Amino acid sequence: MPSAAPLTARPAEAVIAALVEELAARFGNKLATAQAVRRQHGHTLSWTPNQPPDAVIFAESTEDVADAVKLCAARGVPVIAFGTGTSLEGHINAPFGGVSIDLSRMNQVLSVHAEDLDCVVQPGITRTALNAFLRDTGLFFPIDPGADASIGGMTSTRASGTNAVRYGTMKDNVLALTVVTPQGDIIKTGSRARKSSAGYDLTRLYVGAEGTLGVITEITLRLFGIPEAISAATCQFPSVKAACDAVIQTIQTGLPIARIELCDEMTVRAFNNYSKLGLAETPMLFLEFHGSAEGVEEQTARFGEIAAEFGGGPFHWTTNAEERTKLWKARHDVFWAYQTLKTKQQMVGFATDVCVPISRLADCVTQTQKDAAEHDLLAPIVGHVGDGNFHCGVLFDNQDPDDVRRAKEFSERLVRRALAMGGTCTGEHGVGQAKMKFMPVEHTPGALDVMRAIKRALDPANIMNPGKIIDV
Amino acid sequence: MPSAAPLTARPAEAVIAALVEELAARFGNKLATAQAVRRQHGHTLSWTPNQPPDAVIFAESTEDVADAVKLCAARGVPVIAFGTGTSLEGHINAPFGGVSIDLSRMNQVLSVHAEDLDCVVQPGITRTALNAFLRDTGLFFPIDPGADASIGGMTSTRASGTNAVRYGTMKDNVLALTVVTPQGDIIKTGSRARKSSAGYDLTRLYVGAEGTLGVITEITLRLFGIPEAISAATCQFPSVKAACDAVIQTIQTGLPIARIELCDEMTVRAFNNYSKLGLAETPMLFLEFHGSAEGVEEQTARFGEIAAEFGGGPFHWTTNAEERTKLWKARHDVFWAYQTLKTKQQMVGFATDVCVPISRLADCVTQTQKDAAEHDLLAPIVGHVGDGNFHCGVLFDNQDPDDVRRAKEFSERLVRRALAMGGTCTGEHGVGQAKMKFMPVEHTPGALDVMRAIKRALDPANIMNPGKIIDV
Repeated sequence: MPSAAPLTARPAEAVIAALVEELAARFGNKLATAQAVRRQHGHTLSWTPNQPPDAVIFAESTEDVADAVKLCAARGVPVIAFGTGTSLEGHINAPFGGVSIDLSRMNQVLSVHAEDLDCVVQPGITRTALNAFLRDTGLFFPIDPGADASIGGMTSTRASGTNAVRYGTMKDNVLALTVVTPQGDIIKTGSRARKSSAGYDLTRLYVGAEGTLGVITEITLRLFGIPEAISAATCQFPSVKAACDAVIQTIQTGLPIARIELCDEMTVRAFNNYSKLGLAETPMLFLEFHGSAEGVEEQTARFGEIAAEFGGGPFHWTTNAEERTKLWKARHDVFWAYQTLKTKQQMVGFATDVCVPISRLADCVTQTQKDAAEHDLLAPIVGHVGDGNFHCGVLFDNQDPDDVRRAKEFSERLVRRALAMGGTCTGEHGVGQAKMKFMPVEHTPGALDVMRAIKRALDPANIMNPGKIIDV
Repeated sequence: MPSAAPLTARPAEAVIAALVEELAARFGNKLATAQAVRRQHGHTLSWTPNQPPDAVIFAESTEDVADAVKLCAARGVPVIAFGTGTSLEGHINAPFGGVSIDLSRMNQVLSVHAEDLDCVVQPGITRTALNAFLRDTGLFFPIDPGADASIGGMTSTRASGTNAVRYGTMKDNVLALTVVTPQGDIIKTGSRARKSSAGYDLTRLYVGAEGTLGVITEITLRLFGIPEAISAATCQFPSVKAACDAVIQTIQTGLPIARIELCDEMTVRAFNNYSKLGLAETPMLFLEFHGSAEGVEEQTARFGEIAAEFGGGPFHWTTNAEERTKLWKARHDVFWAYQTLKTKQQMVGFATDVCVPISRLADCVTQTQKDAAEHDLLAPIVGHVGDGNFHCGVLFDNQDPDDVRRAKEFSERLVRRALAMGGTCTGEHGVGQAKMKFMPVEHTPGALDVMRAIKRALDPANIMNPGKIIDV
């Protein structure tokens, strides 16, 4: 491995110019350097300023990626993997310049092994495209982070979303990876066996590494049979605590619930504004049950009993696919619904996420609501509460420095509150640039040293997505 | 981190003598150097020769472990973590001498968080002791590798066992760890949050690292509610293929089966010998269903239909706890049952495990049976077939060099067969010493380089359980 000093600043313009010439020779019209394309590849859904790369390669194969990485490595220039650009914490910015490797053309399903309930895909395929491809097989890939993210990006951020309470997160559903290392070598991290004890778990090392240890070019995923029956339900509760207590009891009785989403009072108000639902402005759970026809009926009935115990109601449920879609529509429209809460036209929203042990969820949500009210901030909450994970979507005027400051401080207090409750600064969005400052708050210094030692050992030149996760 | 050259041979006697003096001063009667104790700590259930450590420390706290590691590190002497000694591939041998850190006195449950379905334990507690402790809480820890292993050892080998098809393996059920690093620092790898995207997944790095990257001193585990109802069943099949096809269909229809164990014809013969069951000598599945009373009845009925489709029967099942125990007794007695197959008194058995994609399971099992028959070897098979994982227990005369050679060659062919089918050389036992030679067969050279880079970065002096998993 190269022993060059690790990159800590932008490479010289001449280095970039020479590299771009080499890339043009190798990649022809798969290379783009137009400003619009570069800016688009630094764009994220976060409020971090756009830091565009110097060039973009539209890779079409693992070999393309390996060659691009080798050329960048030879000149010590950063490499940033790009999927769909739906990450939320400045993951794809290029603070030290470099080359964005756009993987959206690598969007094929390479194989489906229906008997083994797995498939091998390229990183650029999105989760909805994968599920559309799989439909005829009777199988599906359950992880649903909301955005139509790429499977590569979901792997790299350790994404999860609404189904994680039943099906786990990306960590649980990636069986193996093909990775291009910072040296441009192509490695495989595992086999299609369901489990293995054959050495260090490299798969889990690259899952959630946010492209800082290598570029993922193939992903072997677990699949599941499409459930015979699905039932969806909504239920309102007198308080966040009552809703959370119902969730805790549901999880504790082992009810194999597939989705359980909390919306707070302000979110319900936004639904009323947007979809004219006429709901009482009290917290609400959206639920989904998967299984056999008898199984989902039984699960639904049991949840109904639990909900009633905690004052929940009215309780609506259905197994009809069309009605189910209608029931979930409000939850899916949450982003648009939030726009109706704006008190000034120029307001923008940003989403942050934390995760706490489920017993602390009600406390964490209610304290966060109180904090927002005290600081006169619009901060509606939705959460994947079966995991103790929730999102806070702060609305603020990003032209008003005071508004920006208050939103930032609120977000920081939220993270510190979650950490103080034994939680984590991000349950599923990842660290990127925006949450790096919380890493020393969340982790012991020794644990950060271990992360740094791994990063330095595998990427001594610090060219893989530098300026993300940890300072090296 | 120290920059000493990595250890590749036994430290000089004088170094050991000086270290033992220091350990005696710090640890008093927690230190043992008697040959019997040392030999016991090199003992494993594998056929690898016993390589005892130079001394044993009976640690009683994380600080004991940290101090022992620091003293060893200062002199470049190996450290080998020891739980119950039930590992199977020479994991706890001391090929370069050194100090065995016996964790059996660190056997406390430090906390149970019933609402969060988790607990924090010391590494020396065994799984049955943990479940006995938990009984009154209505919760249980599902991972059952057969042996009454320590939770620390199960974590370090990435163990799984009979329940993994429903509840996952140790990788899925460890939330966080406290680890003493090779430098003697104490680090935490995570929180009690159910999921996190906050940096590299250090938890999964230490799970399955077999003590080569640090010593685990606390483990946060996921717990599950004890199912309201459990139903157990047995079913015989005309062939291994028919049994495996029933398993595949069961998994594919999403039946949430809790255990599904295959026993081949020879294993059934051993059951008949040992327990006078009078079963037809055909392959057999042992099954268990967990859920609500209605749920398990439905699951059992559905499996019955699937079994019938593949010619399975007779199909016996029960929800009665006592009868369930009787039904499973044969499976649990398999070790003793195998003794009845011996054709010479001096025969011994060794157990090896491989794991393949489930679609290849029938092929892999039948080819392995054929191989054993052709080579006149007694090699009965049992498997956690829901995962594609099976064990082959070869019986051979270890006083007869020809028998030993044939057993070894058979075992090697088994591993190569599993690898050729896209599987792994070990699904749950780990690499230890005995399977190191297969690592370059299973993994690409680049992946081994990454493993080596991690080992060298975290343990540059190579003092943590050296001579296991990979050569550095």
